[in-house]
Parts: sequence; C-alpha cells; structure tokens
Amino acid sequence: MRIAWLVLFVLIFAERASGAGTLRERWLVTTDLWGNPSHALLELHGDGRAWTGTFDGDPLTGETRGGTVRLRVTAAGGTTWSYDGKRDGDAMRGTADWPDSNHAGRRVRHAFVARRIAEPPPGPPRTVTFEPTTYSNEFSPHRAPVLTVRAGDTVRTRTIDSGGVDAADETRALYGNPQTGPFFVDGAAPGDTLVVHLVRLRPNRDFADSLDDLVARARGASLAVAARGLGKPVRWTIDRERGVARPQAPSERLRHFEVPLRPMLGGLAVAPPFGMAPMSTGDTGRFGGNMDFNEIVEGTTVYLPVYQPGALLYLGDAHARQGDGETSQYALETSMDVEFRVDVMHGKAPSSPRVESASAIMVLGQAGSLEDAVRAATTDLVDWLRKDYGLDLSESAQVLGSSVEYRIANLAGRSVGVAAKLDKSLLAGLARIAP
Amino acid sequence: MRIAWLVLFVLIFAERASGAGTLRERWLVTTDLWGNPSHALLELHGDGRAWTGTFDGDPLTGETRGGTVRLRVTAAGGTTWSYDGKRDGDAMRGTADWPDSNHAGRRVRHAFVARRIAEPPPGPPRTVTFEPTTYSNEFSPHRAPVLTVRAGDTVRTRTIDSGGVDAADETRALYGNPQTGPFFVDGAAPGDTLVVHLVRLRPNRDFADSLDDLVARARGASLAVAARGLGKPVRWTIDRERGVARPQAPSERLRHFEVPLRPMLGGLAVAPPFGMAPMSTGDTGRFGGNMDFNEIVEGTTVYLPVYQPGALLYLGDAHARQGDGETSQYALETSMDVEFRVDVMHGKAPSSPRVESASAIMVLGQAGSLEDAVRAATTDLVDWLRKDYGLDLSESAQVLGSSVEYRIANLAGRSVGVAAKLDKSLLAGLARIAP
Amino acid sequence: MRIAWLVLFVLIFAERASGAGTLRERWLVTTDLWGNPSHALLELHGDGRAWTGTFDGDPLTGETRGGTVRLRVTAAGGTTWSYDGKRDGDAMRGTADWPDSNHAGRRVRHAFVARRIAEPPPGPPRTVTFEPTTYSNEFSPHRAPVLTVRAGDTVRTRTIDSGGVDAADETRALYGNPQTGPFFVDGAAPGDTLVVHLVRLRPNRDFADSLDDLVARARGASLAVAARGLGKPVRWTIDRERGVARPQAPSERLRHFEVPLRPMLGGLAVAPPFGMAPMSTGDTGRFGGNMDFNEIVEGTTVYLPVYQPGALLYLGDAHARQGDGETSQYALETSMDVEFRVDVMHGKAPSSPRVESASAIMVLGQAGSLEDAVRAATTDLVDWLRKDYGLDLSESAQVLGSSVEYRIANLAGRSVGVAAKLDKSLLAGLARIAP
Amino acid sequence: MRIAWLVLFVLIFAERASGAGTLRERWLVTTDLWGNPSHALLELHGDGRAWTGTFDGDPLTGETRGGTVRLRVTAAGGTTWSYDGKRDGDAMRGTADWPDSNHAGRRVRHAFVARRIAEPPPGPPRTVTFEPTTYSNEFSPHRAPVLTVRAGDTVRTRTIDSGGVDAADETRALYGNPQTGPFFVDGAAPGDTLVVHLVRLRPNRDFADSLDDLVARARGASLAVAARGLGKPVRWTIDRERGVARPQAPSERLRHFEVPLRPMLGGLAVAPPFGMAPMSTGDTGRFGGNMDFNEIVEGTTVYLPVYQPGALLYLGDAHARQGDGETSQYALETSMDVEFRVDVMHGKAPSSPRVESASAIMVLGQAGSLEDAVRAATTDLVDWLRKDYGLDLSESAQVLGSSVEYRIANLAGRSVGVAAKLDKSLLAGLARIAP
Repeated sequence: MRIAWLVLFVLIFAERASGAGTLRERWLVTTDLWGNPSHALLELHGDGRAWTGTFDGDPLTGETRGGTVRLRVTAAGGTTWSYDGKRDGDAMRGTADWPDSNHAGRRVRHAFVARRIAEPPPGPPRTVTFEPTTYSNEFSPHRAPVLTVRAGDTVRTRTIDSGGVDAADETRALYGNPQTGPFFVDGAAPGDTLVVHLVRLRPNRDFADSLDDLVARARGASLAVAARGLGKPVRWTIDRERGVARPQAPSERLRHFEVPLRPMLGGLAVAPPFGMAPMSTGDTGRFGGNMDFNEIVEGTTVYLPVYQPGALLYLGDAHARQGDGETSQYALETSMDVEFRVDVMHGKAPSSPRVESASAIMVLGQAGSLEDAVRAATTDLVDWLRKDYGLDLSESAQVLGSSVEYRIANLAGRSVGVAAKLDKSLLAGLARIAP
Repeated sequence: MRIAWLVLFVLIFAERASGAGTLRERWLVTTDLWGNPSHALLELHGDGRAWTGTFDGDPLTGETRGGTVRLRVTAAGGTTWSYDGKRDGDAMRGTADWPDSNHAGRRVRHAFVARRIAEPPPGPPRTVTFEPTTYSNEFSPHRAPVLTVRAGDTVRTRTIDSGGVDAADETRALYGNPQTGPFFVDGAAPGDTLVVHLVRLRPNRDFADSLDDLVARARGASLAVAARGLGKPVRWTIDRERGVARPQAPSERLRHFEVPLRPMLGGLAVAPPFGMAPMSTGDTGRFGGNMDFNEIVEGTTVYLPVYQPGALLYLGDAHARQGDGETSQYALETSMDVEFRVDVMHGKAPSSPRVESASAIMVLGQAGSLEDAVRAATTDLVDWLRKDYGLDLSESAQVLGSSVEYRIANLAGRSVGVAAKLDKSLLAGLARIAP
Repeated sequence: MRIAWLVLFVLIFAERASGAGTLRERWLVTTDLWGNPSHALLELHGDGRAWTGTFDGDPLTGETRGGTVRLRVTAAGGTTWSYDGKRDGDAMRGTADWPDSNHAGRRVRHAFVARRIAEPPPGPPRTVTFEPTTYSNEFSPHRAPVLTVRAGDTVRTRTIDSGGVDAADETRALYGNPQTGPFFVDGAAPGDTLVVHLVRLRPNRDFADSLDDLVARARGASLAVAARGLGKPVRWTIDRERGVARPQAPSERLRHFEVPLRPMLGGLAVAPPFGMAPMSTGDTGRFGGNMDFNEIVEGTTVYLPVYQPGALLYLGDAHARQGDGETSQYALETSMDVEFRVDVMHGKAPSSPRVESASAIMVLGQAGSLEDAVRAATTDLVDWLRKDYGLDLSESAQVLGSSVEYRIANLAGRSVGVAAKLDKSLLAGLARIAP
Repeated sequence: MRIAWLVLFVLIFAERASGAGTLRERWLVTTDLWGNPSHALLELHGDGRAWTGTFDGDPLTGETRGGTVRLRVTAAGGTTWSYDGKRDGDAMRGTADWPDSNHAGRRVRHAFVARRIAEPPPGPPRTVTFEPTTYSNEFSPHRAPVLTVRAGDTVRTRTIDSGGVDAADETRALYGNPQTGPFFVDGAAPGDTLVVHLVRLRPNRDFADSLDDLVARARGASLAVAARGLGKPVRWTIDRERGVARPQAPSERLRHFEVPLRPMLGGLAVAPPFGMAPMSTGDTGRFGGNMDFNEIVEGTTVYLPVYQPGALLYLGDAHARQGDGETSQYALETSMDVEFRVDVMHGKAPSSPRVESASAIMVLGQAGSLEDAVRAATTDLVDWLRKDYGLDLSESAQVLGSSVEYRIANLAGRSVGVAAKLDKSLLAGLARIAP
C-alpha cells in the first residue's frame, strides 16, 4: 500500500481593486483531488491587478483581468502549481494544474473552489459566547466552522455528554462523543501550534453517566472470567456545591463512597491532515482526539499541531472525573460549561499532544500499544526539553532518569495513551527559552 | 466517552399498486441521525395499500394513501419505530420517529430519504465486465455503488496501483490505495457473510513500484540507526511470461535476484458499520480493509461480515508479490486484472476476515499489537472449527496445539495482522458441517 | 515443554525425648529430586517416640526408635509421602518415598537431609543490628540464611550499591545488584504473606552513580538514532543535609539542576518457588525482585507471597532517587542504611507484590509487556479490594473507573512493571475488613 | 540497578616440563568473584618454565618455579590480571589479582582454581554414543560436562520427555524439560559460533503426552471465558511405522484425526554468559534454550553463540510434533533418539539463534513481546545477509520486502519467539560468501 503523507500545495487569488497596491485578501481554497478535498490558505497582496502572496506558505505571483484570475505558486525545489479561474465576489472556481506525483514532468488538472475569509474586526482580543446547536461525530477537515475566532480570543461555550445529552437532560446529538465545533482560528496555518488555555471547566448539570465495566486491556485471565456480568449503567450524582460525586443508587458497601470532582475534557482535537480520512470522535492521533487524559482540566494549556487552515478546533466528551485509563469504558460522562482562550505559535508543531499545568509539563503519546505510546511520549518530551529548555540529549536523559513520571492515560480506545510528565519546579533552575 | 455499538432499526414503505397483494418492493432507507446517515434495507409486501415486510430484519406494517406512507416497525423487545412520508415514484422522504436511546419512553424525530432498489433481471448468475472510472480513498458506507450484482454473479474488473496509476501508466486517482467499487451485492444484509471468490488475479502491466525500506516495527535498535538512508523508490520489472519479477536497475549483488510472481489483493473490504467513521483505505478492521495479507491470491475465497445493505465491496492495492509483513512499506505495487464471484451466506458473520484456499483455512486477526492480533485470529479460528466442523473447545485445542500455523501478515499499517492457519488435509478426517 | 508449578510436600521428624508428649521440634527438610533441592518445613509434636505434626501444612505421623526415624505424610487427597532416616543430634538424613508424578501408583525414592531449626528465645519482638559481610547475586532458595528473625522483629542493616560498592566507597561484591540477605523469617511458611515495613531508608554516603542513558523501551525512532552517544557515567552528589542530589560535574545548562532525595529500595524479594531456577538479582517476578519501583520508600509496607520456609528475604539496589521506569538504566545508585520490621500474615499470598503507604495502596504488575503488566496489576488490585474491603467486581469497577492511577514503574529490566494505585482517602468510607 | 555485561578475563598456567619449549597445555580456570564463579580458557605454550599463551583470547606471559606459578594477562587497553598459585598435577589453585571495576587504579583479589583439559586423542572425527544417566533442570555454566567432544565429532544419545520420562516409560528426572548434557565442545571459546547439525531425530517410544489447552496468549476475551475447563492430559499414540500420531482415546469427532510426525527438539542451548544466573530449562535467550520452534527438526543446523569455554551444549524436550506457538502448553512430548554433529566457527557469534534447513535460512527472535521478537529476528536476519551474502541494508530491504516469511514459533514460555525466514532458492542468485 502507499499512504503518502504529502503536504499539498494549492493556491488562489483575488480580484483587482482600485487604487494603489495595498489590497490584502485571504482565501480558503479547496482543490478536488479525484474526489478528495484538499484545503489550503491563500494570502494575496497587490493592487487588484497584480498579486504576490503565499499559498500554504509557498510564494506565488498572479494577476486578475476582468473576473479571470491566474496564479502561479513555486515551491522551494522549483515545483509549480497553477490555478486558473473565475472570481464572483467572495467566491472563485476554476482549474488547478498540478505536477503528477507519479511521473516527473507530467501534469494533472483538478477542479478547485475558493471562498474569501472575512477579515476580523480590528481591536483587542474578544470574549465570545457560543451556544452550539449542532455537534460533530467526526474530527473532519471538511466541516464548516461554527465560529471564527482570532488568536487571543476567549470562547465561552458548552459541551454535551458522550451520549449526546445536554445540561437539560435532552438528547441533542448522536452518541459517540459528539463535539462542539469546529472553531476556525484565524491565523493558524499548517505547521503552526494551536495553544488552547482551558480557563474554566464546570459540569452544568447534577448527574453523570458511567458503567461498572473493566475494559479488556485491564482484565487478567481470572478477571476475564469473572467480569462477564459487568458493563451495567451507573448514574452518579454530581454535588457541585460540595465538589464531589457519588453513585446515585449505591450498593450497601459503596454507601459512603464519594470522590472529588475533577472536571476534564475527554475530547480535544484539531482537524487531521490531508491524507487521513476524517476520524471518528472516538479515535485519537497526533491531532489530539478522544484523548481521555484526566490531566486536561481547568487551568491547563494544551498544545496541538495545526494541519488545516484555521486549525478547526473540536471539543467534547467532558468527564466530571475519570480514573487513569478510563477503565470503566465510560468515565463520569456529563455536559460541561467550557471557557477557553486560543493562541497560535508560529511553527514548532509538536509530534504529540502536549499539556501544561501550573506545576508540570506533560506529553501524551498515543499508539496501538503501551510500548509504542511510551516511546512517543518520551521522544516528544525530549524534543520539548531541547526546544524550550535548550537541553541536549545527555542532559535530558539525566533529567528524565531522575525525575520523569509516566501515567497511563487511556486504555479504553482503539489506541492507548501514556503521558510522560515532569515537575516544573525541577526545571526552575533551567532557563526556559520558550514559549 | 461513549461509543455505542447500537444496531439501528429504521423503516419505510411503498405506494399501492393495482391488483392483488402480490407487490414486492425493496428500498434503501437513509435516516439522518443528527447529521449521521444510517442506511437500512426495507422490504415491503402488499397490495399497494396495506403492507407488511421487514426493516433490517425487523417486522413492520404499513399503509399508503394518496402518496402518503406510514410505516411502523416493531423489534423483538417491543421497541417501535415509525416512518411517515411522501412517495414520489421510486423516491421517498419524510420523518422518522425513534425511541430516544438515552431516555426510556421519550421519542426523537429524524428526517429520512429512501430510494427504491431496482429488481435484478431474472435468470442464472451473470458475468459482468466493469471498467472503473472513479476510485475511492475511503471505505465508506455512504458512497454510491458503482455496480449492483447478485449473489452468484462474476465480475471482471481492474484495480489501479496504490499510487493511483493504471495499466497504461496514467495517474487516475489519489495515492493511498484508491479502490475500485463499491459493488452493491443484492441480497447481502447486515449480519450476513459476504463470500468473495478470487477467480483470477493478474498484473496487467510490466512494472511494479516498491521501496527499499524496513518498517519501524521490523527495526531493532541497531537497525534503527543503520536504516536512516532507506526508503528510496525501487522499480521492479514484471516478467509476465516467465512469471517472475526483478529490480529494474539492480545493484551489482542483486544482479541475478528474481522472485516468482504471486499476485495478491492488498485491499478487500466491505463498508464498515454505522457508528464507525468511513475508514481510510490505508486502514483495517473486521470489515477487512488494507489487509496486505499475501495469501489473498487467485483461487482463494475471502469471507467478510456484512454491515451495510448490499455489503458495498471495495477492492484495490494489488501486489505482484509481497513478503510477510510488507516490511518495505510498499510491496510490488501494480495494477491488476481482477475477476471475482460473490456469494452470500445468511448470518454467520465472522469476527475476523477469513481466507480459504485449496489447501488451508486461515483467519486474519488485526489489532494494534501482535499480541492482540494473535488472540483475535485464534479465537475466530476456534469459532470456525466449532461452527463448520462441530469441534468443541477441547477438540480445537488438540488440533491447534498439534497443527496450527501462525503467519505475521502485516507490519506496515496502523494495525498489524496475524493469520492463524490450518492445513485442510488434517481436517479431512473431520466431517465438515458447513459452509 | 512441561513446567509444573507443583507445590511439593515433604516431611521429617525428631528424636524421642524423655517425659510426656510435650516435645515440639521444627526442621528444615531438603529432598534431592534428581539433583534439584526442594525445601520444606517439618513440625513435630510428640513424646520423643511417637510423633504427629505437619509437613508444609500436610498432616503426618511418625515414630523414633534408637536413632531411626519413620514419618508418613498424608495429603488431603490421600497421597502419601514416607521418610525413613537416621537422626544425629540436630541433623537427619535418609530416603524419601514419593509418588511418581508421571505414573499413578508408582513410587520414587529420593535422598533427603534435614537440619533442626533453633527455637527463638522467648520474649517480645527484638531489634537486631546486622552488618553484612557477603552479598548475593541471585535470589536463591538454596542460600544459607544470614540471620533468623521472628515476625515482629526489626532489623537494622545496610545495602551496598548495584555495582557492589559500600558506604566507604569500597567494592564488596560483584556488580549486578548484590543483595543483603537472605533473612529467614521464623513462622513464614509457603502460602503465607510476608509483610515488610520499611521503617528507615537513608543513603549512608555522599554520592550516587548513574548514567546519562535512555533505555531502548523509551526511545522512539528518532531518538534511537540520536541516542547513540548516550550511556556515559554520571556521578551525583548526595547532599544529605539539604535532602537533595545534583550532578557532581554538571554541564552548563544543568548547573542549577538539583532534585529532592527520595530514597528507595530497587531490590526486595523473597526466594522464588521450587520449580523456578534461582533468579538473577536483575530479574523480577511475583516474588518481587529487582522491582525498581520508586514508591518503595521509607514508611511504606511491602507484601510478598511466601514460597519457601522462612520466606528468605533479600534486599538491595537502593536508589537515592529514581524517575519512573528507571529510564537511565541506572538510577541514583547508592549504599543505604535500612531498618525494616517483618510480619507474617497467614495465607492470603498476593499474586503480585503489593505496596502500602500512608496515603495509598498499590499493586505492582510485572510482565514481559506493559499490556500484561497492566492486566496483572489491575487483577490483583481487584483481588485486594475484594479480600480486604469486601467489594464485589461491580463495586471495584466503579472505584477503579473513577479513581485508579496507573504508574509505569520499570522499563529497564527484562520484565517491565506497572503499578495500579488507589488513594486510601477514597476508600475511607469503606470499612476495611483486613489486614 | 547495574547489570554489567562485562567480559571477564582470567588466567592460569602450567608446570614446567623437561625438554625444549614445545609444551602445550590447556586449562579451565574458575575464578571466584565474591561467590560468583567465572570460567575461562587458558592456553599455555612453553618449555615448562617460561610460558606464553592466551587467556580467553588475551595474551599472557608466565613462569613456573617449583610448583609455584605466576601469570600475567594484558588486554588490548593495557589492563592486567595476575594469577599466583600452586600447581598439583592437573590441578591448580591460588589468588588472582584483578582491576577493581568500580575504581580506576585499585585492585581486588579473588581465589581461583583450575583443572587441566585432557587433550583429545589425535585422529579423524569420531562418532560417540552417549547414554545419559543424569539430567539437568538448568542451563548452567557451572555443571560438570557429561562428555567432551571435538568439532567434527558426532554424538548419538537420547533425550527424555519434558516430564522426565524415558523411552521405557520410567521417570528419570524432575519434570520441567530435563536436559541431556552438557557436552563440552573442545575448541569452542567465548565469541565463537557453535554449529549443531541435527543428523537424526526419532521418537524412541510409542506415545506422547500433551494437553487440550490453549495458552493465555492465544485466548481472546470470549475464549478466556470458555476455556476454563481446558488443560486436561491427552495421550497420543505415536505410530512410528506409518509416521503419524493420533489421540489415544479420541472423542467421537476426532476419531479419524491423525497428524504426520515431525520430530523436533524443543530445547537446545549453550550455557549462558557470566553475569546471568543459570537459567531454568523452561526459559530462553540468545543462548537458545527452550525455543520450542517446530523447524528445529532432523536435517537442520542450528547456530548458537558461545559464551563459555567448551560452549556446554544441552538438549532435551523433544516433541513428536508441535503446532506453531505450542498453544497447548505441552506439545506431543516424548523421548527421542538424537544424533548430532558439532562444529565450531571462529567468531561471528549471532545475536539470536539461527536455523538452516535444506531450503531456508531462519532467525529466531525471542523477547518478552512479539513486537520485540520480530525486531530481533529481522535485525539478525539482516546481519546474516550482510555477513554471509554481502548484502547492504538497501539490498536486504528489497529481499525481505518481497520474500521474508514470519512465523510465530512460541507463545507458551515467559518469552515468545518469532522466526524470520528466507527461502534459499531466492538467494541462489546471490553468491554466498560464508560460512
């Protein structure tokens, strides 16, 4: 099989404008590669007749004549892409001329469409309240954004529970971790890092739904036999005043069992890259996804790599509390009030999702086996220490050998997760370079 | 998170027809569950005014009055679904009334559409030639069938290579294992088993493309260092007359290296079930997929579980030959003439893809780790021995302990594959019950 | 192959004593099973002529006549073992007559020897200081005890570092985690649980030795290449006054890097069972071993299953501090002052080592893969909740699903370790039944 | 912890002999490293007064005066070892002076003993018949050889079954794969490769013992529940005339089930290196061990790395036949007539056991997980292609990608085994350089 992880380079352009060359337009271009939509960010500067600019970072030149546009993108190695089309207001469509990835020298033609990105109003960062009405059961790069925000903006919104039930106990979406979003983050381009500050994370109702289950990955041979009857629903009461949860109809022995709330987001993702199919909201990857990591709580910051124009941020599947590994298959599933602030770091896209709290930095490795997840988490933590703390590999090895913590985050999904964690107080003596 | 593996029950109906109650109509109904299409098979019998029938197997009653249709499906436990709509020729649309899966007693309304399935012409099985013009980069239940065939029919078609290149060396689709299909197999319903006989499998051009790579899963620590330069393209010459392949521009030491052709299909799949997102054609699962198992060759039969009406069979990513595990990431990728015959077994859907050759039965376990793949393969092989040979677990344990073979099929994908295999000559003494 | 996990039942006896039947003698019997020594505990009660008693728990009868002893052990199922020999003071030798495990009805004869166990002086538990002069590089059931203690006794002793170097920087033993011990714990019999309270654990010198390494299990593909130069010795200064450690000759960037001491025992084990070869002190198993779990610190209690008469406790390989997984292959290896108290719980031998601190209960699963280690840890934690807290499986699933923590303990050995952990405050509402 | 994989260098010497400097003596020297015996090969040349020679390959000089011997070994880096002692005929004892591995410049003293190796009689290779009377339940470097043979010699001997039962159905040893041996192979030194040609391998009795079990690694969740009753003994009849085996008291459905004999050696090992504890005969490693690989049959050649003077070859645990993975925990366990020829290749010690048949070369990777076993097998197969066929990594990647086979050898032990296999006919075009 041949799964290429190509970075696609597409392009587009804008109509001329009267006056001097001070026009600036941004477009979202979708090229149809034999039925597979590829999205790219086009930035044009010019006088409305002659253009320069970039196309997912590659330089371009172009021109507009009476509604007809022609653009030519040239990548570092000399490869070129041409786009010819018609503009109609804030829309464009036409034909792209691409190199044939299988045959040097040959070219292929694809249809494209584009829509102009509205420029955000000037001014300082805003706080926006967004009340969702639809939810997504896929982390998809093709879904229309529900809201466009800028780096620095804060969003107040809500998530519904993994079964699709909202704060008022109404079913609003299909089970399977329906997500709020996607949010288009203006300024986030492929290769960047999306920074999500979780400002506030609070259950907005008084119950959570769980199971009395033990996932297969947690069952030894004797448990496999004994666990046959498990998997029954368990409703928990969320006592928001006292900050605890307890089974609503406990057995005699669990009569006094209660646990502190520790609200978290199970799902947090950007849209996956071109070349991957849209992912189920039950799945995970470098783009984040259904991570079910119980350290993604209020006050933490999550760093995700940007693969698509605008990043396309999704969030959902909130838990009032969850043990490591989500061994009961469902955690304490509930609906949540979520307030988050987004930022964009140029470049530096991490290989795995990163989480930072007041006291620790964490990397979440996700893979088909715990072994591979440990490797991913360690490798990217070393990368973090290198880039942000300037440590070489020998120095990182000393820091990790004396002080790393490994937590198993997730045992319940198709992939598993392992977090590698370092206490920030230990790193205090090291001058942090960035971010 | 909450990923429910619900079996959905939907329904629909048909306009009255003049004459006695001998009408028989079949429809494909798509219900929109909050943006997630769910497909189901509706079968109606009646006089054109009053109907009985089934909806994905569950019984229904209904009636038609002046273009208005009402249907009511009742499942074994007493749960009901109602469909109300308008019929316009061979199309229908309206509203479905479903139970709320989160709240006993509550109901939810969804929009639905339906299209009538054309009845196949009567007569014996046919052989159909199908020349594909489009290809799919997803194993999707939502893609329109390219052809409808019946159980017993034979199809002669072609696949292009994993990079999208056809027999004439033209790029026809996006890289990433573009598939021919889907074929709608009339008579295949969820819960059935799709039987695919690979009658003929022949490369239809004189070259194959591969790499000189070693996948990460095959690299020990010392190789990981040494293998840095690997991954370069290697073109192979396919000598169809002599039945061998050899590197087209070999190094001095490989000057005389040639290998027998053993054409195989890397990709073979049915559409995955509702509740899973459409899968990348690089991915695998119980539905088959990009299995890359080098025993899926001419003369073998593949058994796959049916999850969607018509099964929706996809095939592609043919290899002129492949070592176990596809350790070079690309095998000898080529385009292929494919002739296959389909059959449907009622029920008996296997838990893992099964392959049968003249001399062996094989089960392909696919999972995130080899450990889990071995478990899946063994468990379903035991199930096969139980159902088709009548062996109890003790008997199977004796057969396997003395005679099972385990082959690692695939190391190159997100999931890996392990095949558990038994020589049919050893089973000859056992009266096979089925199929 | 045939590895039987037989529990062997052997026996022995004592010379007559004058007076009434109030004699009580205990012997350690070693039967030579074709070159494989099997140890058992013999307890005799009688008048010096006729005896009753037990042999590793099975009842026996016997008699003594002029230096000749005859004993007959009968297990629950009716199986019998006979021992005939000569007694010479506190020693015995002779021939044992055993059932042939391969042939019902046949018998086999083996030589045996026995030595009488000195009765401990009466009185309350003692605190004993033991200064080791030899060290063991195997966890062996055959090594002569260095000291006999009773349940309740406290021992003050020392361990040397994993390279064999003591507090005075002198090499005293072979590298490879040489252990202090074994300690014979009077009263510990196979099937019991040895309870080791770590009363005090303090480095007794001012340096520790480590490496700047990253173990293979922590290296992703990119690290595997980059890490080639790693593995160099790093000496750390132990600042006992301030309770911290720091590299003795740090690089510029680690100039201010220091970490709190957290002294721990990497090695803690009982002798493995009959049927296993003596284990390297680098290896692990249900008997404990080189667990390298950084929660085995001062103030914790470790529970291990007893497999041999007297348990035969070993300890060593102390670390001034260690990150999870011991990713640097050597932690901060140092010599240590160790004070521990032993207790014995009758029966209840855990399937995996258990650790209890003031705030948590923990089970350490150890296996060839992290997947299997998670399964072992979870399964035995559920067993703990069942036996000591009376929770059924559904209740345990709720407790774990909401609150379990998983830590990766060890990535550096042949087997890996994963700890499943529960906060005791969460269990406070549950009446603990035992211990 | 600190497990050093040191190669130890020891030494010794011989008394003067009358006449010119034509004396040649060989000794086996055992140095006691704090209770851990280390074995080395000493070769002396001289006139009986002044000596030169080697000590495990390192050069030495020495002298003898009136029963007193002094030897001084100097390794490449300048490190020295001195041995001072008394000779008494073919025995020696004294004190060795070693560098302190923990402290540059310091020295440590150890006791040593040595025994002279009898020179084999001159002449062509011999065929020796050896009737074993004792068996070993450990792969130990410390066990006295049962026979000394030379490279080129052939041995005819027997193995008993894994339960310790011989050809006459008598129990002769403890269950757990008791081994015949060890054989001291004169001329095999650490770093060499032991070559074992399996000339003849035939069951010498008419029954084999097995179980109706499925090992845990083969059980999926549903099997784990269903398999509870498994594990019962199954006796098989070995029909040596017809070359088949069948259950002796089959169930109705297995009445006609029979399988061809394929006699194999489950256990084949050299003594493990210094620094490892003697290994259970149920365990495996680079030294071979209880490999349970069903391709180790009559006519194949096995290559093992030599770690100890004389290699110390063990063999046992023969199976009349075995499925891949030994999924029934016991294969068809039987006693066997074994004829083998030994050779020694200087140097080239493989990293994993290698097996060569008339038609294939195979490498057996053994590790705690199948993932790590695949990596080991592939890495050493690439090493084999490099050393014996002169292929670079790119060429090996092409050969493996098109043609490697992976078989799961063993699922029943503490470690698992995976074999990477190449058909020799594919390699025929490549000039084999060696061996």
